[in-house]
Amino acid sequence: MRAKVGLKDTQLPRQWYNLAADLPGGLLPPRTPDGNILKPEQLSALFPEPLIEQEISQQRWIDIPEEVLEILARWRPTPLVRARKLERALNTPARIYYKNESVSPAGSHKPNTAVPQAYYNKLVGTKRLTTETGAGQWGSALSFASAQFGLECQVFMVRSSYEKKPYRKVMMQTWGASCTPSPSPLTRAGRAILSEHPDSPGSLGIAISEAVEAALADASGQTHYALGSVLNHVMLHQTIIGLEAKRQLMQFGEKTPDTIIACVGGGSNFAGLSFPFIKEKIEGANIDIVPVEPASCPSITRGLFAYDFGDTAGMTPLLAMYTLGHTFMPSPSHAGGLRYHGMAPLVSEATRRGLLRPEAISQVECFSAAVQFARTEGIIVAPETSHAVAQVIREAIRAKEEKREKVILFGLSGHGLLDLQGYAEYFAGEIKNLSLQEDELKQSLASLPNAGPAL
Amino acid sequence: MRAKVGLKDTQLPRQWYNLAADLPGGLLPPRTPDGNILKPEQLSALFPEPLIEQEISQQRWIDIPEEVLEILARWRPTPLVRARKLERALNTPARIYYKNESVSPAGSHKPNTAVPQAYYNKLVGTKRLTTETGAGQWGSALSFASAQFGLECQVFMVRSSYEKKPYRKVMMQTWGASCTPSPSPLTRAGRAILSEHPDSPGSLGIAISEAVEAALADASGQTHYALGSVLNHVMLHQTIIGLEAKRQLMQFGEKTPDTIIACVGGGSNFAGLSFPFIKEKIEGANIDIVPVEPASCPSITRGLFAYDFGDTAGMTPLLAMYTLGHTFMPSPSHAGGLRYHGMAPLVSEATRRGLLRPEAISQVECFSAAVQFARTEGIIVAPETSHAVAQVIREAIRAKEEKREKVILFGLSGHGLLDLQGYAEYFAGEIKNLSLQEDELKQSLASLPNAGPAL
Repeated sequence: MRAKVGLKDTQLPRQWYNLAADLPGGLLPPRTPDGNILKPEQLSALFPEPLIEQEISQQRWIDIPEEVLEILARWRPTPLVRARKLERALNTPARIYYKNESVSPAGSHKPNTAVPQAYYNKLVGTKRLTTETGAGQWGSALSFASAQFGLECQVFMVRSSYEKKPYRKVMMQTWGASCTPSPSPLTRAGRAILSEHPDSPGSLGIAISEAVEAALADASGQTHYALGSVLNHVMLHQTIIGLEAKRQLMQFGEKTPDTIIACVGGGSNFAGLSFPFIKEKIEGANIDIVPVEPASCPSITRGLFAYDFGDTAGMTPLLAMYTLGHTFMPSPSHAGGLRYHGMAPLVSEATRRGLLRPEAISQVECFSAAVQFARTEGIIVAPETSHAVAQVIREAIRAKEEKREKVILFGLSGHGLLDLQGYAEYFAGEIKNLSLQEDELKQSLASLPNAGPAL
Repeated sequence: MRAKVGLKDTQLPRQWYNLAADLPGGLLPPRTPDGNILKPEQLSALFPEPLIEQEISQQRWIDIPEEVLEILARWRPTPLVRARKLERALNTPARIYYKNESVSPAGSHKPNTAVPQAYYNKLVGTKRLTTETGAGQWGSALSFASAQFGLECQVFMVRSSYEKKPYRKVMMQTWGASCTPSPSPLTRAGRAILSEHPDSPGSLGIAISEAVEAALADASGQTHYALGSVLNHVMLHQTIIGLEAKRQLMQFGEKTPDTIIACVGGGSNFAGLSFPFIKEKIEGANIDIVPVEPASCPSITRGLFAYDFGDTAGMTPLLAMYTLGHTFMPSPSHAGGLRYHGMAPLVSEATRRGLLRPEAISQVECFSAAVQFARTEGIIVAPETSHAVAQVIREAIRAKEEKREKVILFGLSGHGLLDLQGYAEYFAGEIKNLSLQEDELKQSLASLPNAGPAL
């Protein structure tokens, strides 16, 4: 069956799903800091044309290029697994399924968008990509994808993660990329933070500022910026997860799941699994869809829906989203990939329309859930993913109390084999719950720009 | 299709292949130190009955229990991938395929045998397993499998690896196992080594002695020992790799591969991929089958075929195999999983019969090959696996020189995400080739016991 580009006769989806097409009235548009609606061409210094088109597209289905499929097919479709041993351990009548994205070369769902982003950049002649990374999952994925297309790649990694996970840098280096702890002295944004807070642990917001600045600093236009979450085109690329999961659930003889759970930071893992099911929900299906965020960085459970910057220094356009304020500095928790002040506009919009039921969980419960999952299902999940696992256990126990045979689907976004320091600290009893005080929140919300319209 | 035990309608093999059935005249039997042929029941203090039966079985096909398949199906069949970007980078007419075992929860092929070993032990009432580990792959896999069946697990880890890879211990701990650096003061064998060599880096042979002693020390009989390589039943369990690969190659429209390559330490990864193809070779197919070992521990390229102990302290039966002598102390290379003085009797027998063409490669070439592979195919392989990659690149370049369109299949036995220190040292220029001097070899071969018959 030697199909073209070596694709086996798999059930790989050939199109991504664009949720924007199914939200009547659409999304609130991004704005410039002066309050005007952003023109798509204003993004062209950062992103290649095809990604800008996807960013604003209203088309429901968008073709996945063959060159992208060729690479994704190395590990996709990812396994959908019934968590029978976890079910038995919890003695729950619920049937629990997980979509295992940890089998990618970078160990998470992130390559699903890193590969097309690198591909479209290569197509328009980009030579170099800059980006930020929190836990390191995204920076690793973009390094991997850049190597696939012969692009240079410069990663700004949140310093607290960089120091906890020295091997992430080696990983990126193996793929030929460079990795710098952020805030760094390499950019104006980094230097500004360092002069005020020389020991700053960094944040995704700061690292984004640095990566954007580094891309714009190349006057030749051959350097672009790549974002691992938040934006519409990133959500789009991730929907391959949920599209596969739908088909695979049918192979198990299941119909629509009752509950869908995924951890959420910027939104891409959650969007990837859930958007194809949100489509069904909009069409009338009864599905409880639960994004789970860390209690220490609770953008959709405690933030405001407002226009805010995507980064700390205020270099990006304003996005209409749930936010804790772009100056918010989350505690240095182990779930570095969830330490973001905002939330993807598409996920925010779905939240605002009442399509989702967000939850926030503290990290001790998450690590405890992760250990139970490792000892039953065998996968050592990333600290980010542990938030989903904790919620799954809550729901499975509730199903038992209610004697309800329900189907729970959750996203196993990545493995934690580069995050074992967190597990070591958990076993040593050193993991503390980090909570967000009301006055801290008030203070960072005060940083919201007055530029956009009040929502 | 909610099949029993949740198996999807996969192409998962339902039987293992036993090469012993196809070696006319069979294997030379194991012997006790006094030279007598070992009786199977003499193994019963270490292994459960079903594994002893498999160890001596002459049956060609052996059923895989449903309970084992249920667990393996979480990640099996593993991907077979055509390495198109590597082919292009090498500008070779060869078509290169790799069987990717790195997607298992432990990151290697080792769970293929850890799961059935834990299963059969559970079946006979074992409460606790002891084992050794070199690089940590096997110890991790047995920890994972033990958790699946509620068994305790105690791992003796070669000290040089233990110190290089602190997170392996955390991984095993997460699965509920304990991990001790070897040589340790916990056993007589360990104490004997430590008293002579307090700084001993350890070896697989020493760690085996410790694990065997720890199992025998439990007079209740509820503790068994588990071995991750070498023995016939381990080779048997790994054949699921090659059986899947055969089917998958057909899906790509390929017939029998021209060349099969896998790294070899104790033999299980190599056996798993190659044995189903050795069957074809015995039946007349023309296949070049190449086990690749490190130049610093060259048991099949420079060792003797003789009766020797499986461990350093001489606690195991004598096996007829290629060996460097059981007192051989390999240099502390990064490929910890290949640092074993002997070779699986089945692999040794196939070598002796001229069915294989062994090669030995030094570690600088291996790391260089691994980096090229990471930047083309995207997977950061384990240092053990890099030996196979290096040989693949040699063969692909040869195919180019000979203008020969050939099919190369190789075993990607595991990822290197817990071995990134080796990559870091490679980038820092600190990796040295380790060679084995003739007089060192002579000395360790002098330790061969006189107990077995001369071969």
